[in-house]
Amino acid sequence: MIDTPYLEVDVDRMTRNLAVLADRARSAGVDFRPHAKTHKCAEIARMQIDSGATGLAVATIGEAEAFADAADITSCTDIFIAYPIWPTPAKAARLRALADRVSLRVGVDSAEGARHLGALLGGQRVEALVEVDSGQHRTGTAPGDAGGVAAAGVSAGLDVVGVFTFPGHGYGVGDTRRRAAEQEVAALRTAAESLRAQGIDPRVRSGGSTPTVEFVGDPTYAGVLTEIRPGVYPLNDAQQVEIGTCGFDDVALTAVATVVRSEPGRIVLDAGSKILGADRAAWATGHGRLLDHPDARVVQLSEHHAVVEFPAESTSAPRLGDVIRVVPNHVCTAVNLVDELVAIDGSDSRWPVIARGHNS
Amino acid sequence: MIDTPYLEVDVDRMTRNLAVLADRARSAGVDFRPHAKTHKCAEIARMQIDSGATGLAVATIGEAEAFADAADITSCTDIFIAYPIWPTPAKAARLRALADRVSLRVGVDSAEGARHLGALLGGQRVEALVEVDSGQHRTGTAPGDAGGVAAAGVSAGLDVVGVFTFPGHGYGVGDTRRRAAEQEVAALRTAAESLRAQGIDPRVRSGGSTPTVEFVGDPTYAGVLTEIRPGVYPLNDAQQVEIGTCGFDDVALTAVATVVRSEPGRIVLDAGSKILGADRAAWATGHGRLLDHPDARVVQLSEHHAVVEFPAESTSAPRLGDVIRVVPNHVCTAVNLVDELVAIDGSDSRWPVIARGHNS
Repeated sequence: MIDTPYLEVDVDRMTRNLAVLADRARSAGVDFRPHAKTHKCAEIARMQIDSGATGLAVATIGEAEAFADAADITSCTDIFIAYPIWPTPAKAARLRALADRVSLRVGVDSAEGARHLGALLGGQRVEALVEVDSGQHRTGTAPGDAGGVAAAGVSAGLDVVGVFTFPGHGYGVGDTRRRAAEQEVAALRTAAESLRAQGIDPRVRSGGSTPTVEFVGDPTYAGVLTEIRPGVYPLNDAQQVEIGTCGFDDVALTAVATVVRSEPGRIVLDAGSKILGADRAAWATGHGRLLDHPDARVVQLSEHHAVVEFPAESTSAPRLGDVIRVVPNHVCTAVNLVDELVAIDGSDSRWPVIARGHNS
Repeated sequence: MIDTPYLEVDVDRMTRNLAVLADRARSAGVDFRPHAKTHKCAEIARMQIDSGATGLAVATIGEAEAFADAADITSCTDIFIAYPIWPTPAKAARLRALADRVSLRVGVDSAEGARHLGALLGGQRVEALVEVDSGQHRTGTAPGDAGGVAAAGVSAGLDVVGVFTFPGHGYGVGDTRRRAAEQEVAALRTAAESLRAQGIDPRVRSGGSTPTVEFVGDPTYAGVLTEIRPGVYPLNDAQQVEIGTCGFDDVALTAVATVVRSEPGRIVLDAGSKILGADRAAWATGHGRLLDHPDARVVQLSEHHAVVEFPAESTSAPRLGDVIRVVPNHVCTAVNLVDELVAIDGSDSRWPVIARGHNS
């Protein structure tokens, strides 16, 4: 009996999710490099590698260090920091130390950034991918400019091996996912051509998010991409349910919470934004969902309270003191709020969130 | 030189903020019990006690334990868990252990909850306040029902000493704060009368949030309230700036971030929702603000990216590699994402966030 609120992983469900996407990558003939920022756990990374992943993606140098430190558990020494790092000398020293012990790949998205990174790496060979913007409009250069960035990187001593993008604009309802996947393919194709025009072989063409990997079997998609990097898929979350990537039966992580107040049609839970996270997209129907009550909505969220409303006709609303399961909107930020996950695997293991808070 | 992103505290500004509110409470003749969930740091709690605070408020049993453990630093053994806890036997044992070493007060907001808590405390005397809803519609009973809850608590062995509310609906623009303060006073007055009607002395009448304590000097306000519990005021945040509680010069906590991409009128920072938090009220102008660029807006936030736009006429936009300061929307959730705060006090102390993640 653990005191609520806490985060729990349904290991059977997760194992099934791991197999589905690994199979999909295998069928499509692309490499599979899951993004470990979602779970930040060595145990889950190990299961991903065992399912056929060729390496891990991470977002920061600190996350790469945490997973390099856990290589005895993960059996993985192939790490891609999928981020256009602007290093200080101190960060560059950390990158060099990492490159001494794992196969390290990093992102660049501007000629100036590539030159700066190459100079600070001081001749140490590190693989680099040029990030291109496929429509999210976050980081990433225009696809047609990727060759110029790549050439700057090569001149600065980087081992530029290809291009990558994150189709984060695929998070949405309707045909948003398919359109983002089409833009992703188009951007990577253009970027690859841009590298070839500079005489640089774009042998790695990396994309894929949990919402868009559904399309990896399409010949146009797999014909361009050589690697996918979904993150959320082992655990899933309310966002994935609401955009249609998965069903409630595929959700493997929940916040276990206690009802601390109950009124007709309305309850308040002890799980708030400090364990669920506060992410809420414009199209989200609330601040998370209840796994066993699809008709309920989390209408208000504060740090340690979730206010949940039920339809007037509902007869199944939980009562004061009941313990129930909440599906966070965005699992990556929920996991980052706890030191360990409770794994429901027959022995109630605790999995340390080894890269929690490794922002730098 | 610390690797970005990280959270930094301007200790001079914080010291000024501490004095302003302590003076305001003193002038109004009310007790001052700051909410420690904001900073979760023993060092800041100590400065609050030194400024005249009579005790601390916290949100969870775990936070109370962390501050009880740090009593040698804080010199405070008076803790109010301002939350209607529904304990399991395990949580009740933790409460009993806490009550053995600090002066402990807890919240109740239903007769059933009060009976349950009293029964599980097994005769150990713990002070309780009845929570009432002053308009936020989260937890808290209707003010007129407070006496019934109090009577149930007394029957169950609780030492009911008064009432409390949190006017969280005071977070808003225009006259939202003043209206919430008026509702807060009305609710506490009604609740106090409700306790008196049951023959229970409501000697503690606790309210006050950072947005509403501006009005504590009003005779109606201080005439009803005996205690205020603001949380955010030592550090402040973009929410407080945008609702008019403070100015940018009063913001004492920032996320220090590096520009990792730069285009005309637009930059991307390495500080995302995993260090800024993702709170964004409907009235917020973005996902945080830039301390030294009030004309900029954080238009897009992901886990490790903040996309910032500047007005077309702006000539001051930072450049690639520049290090700048971001003001989180909600400081309480930002602090909860890091293990320590960097205190700019002449010696760059590191303050451990001792109650980070203590959700249960």
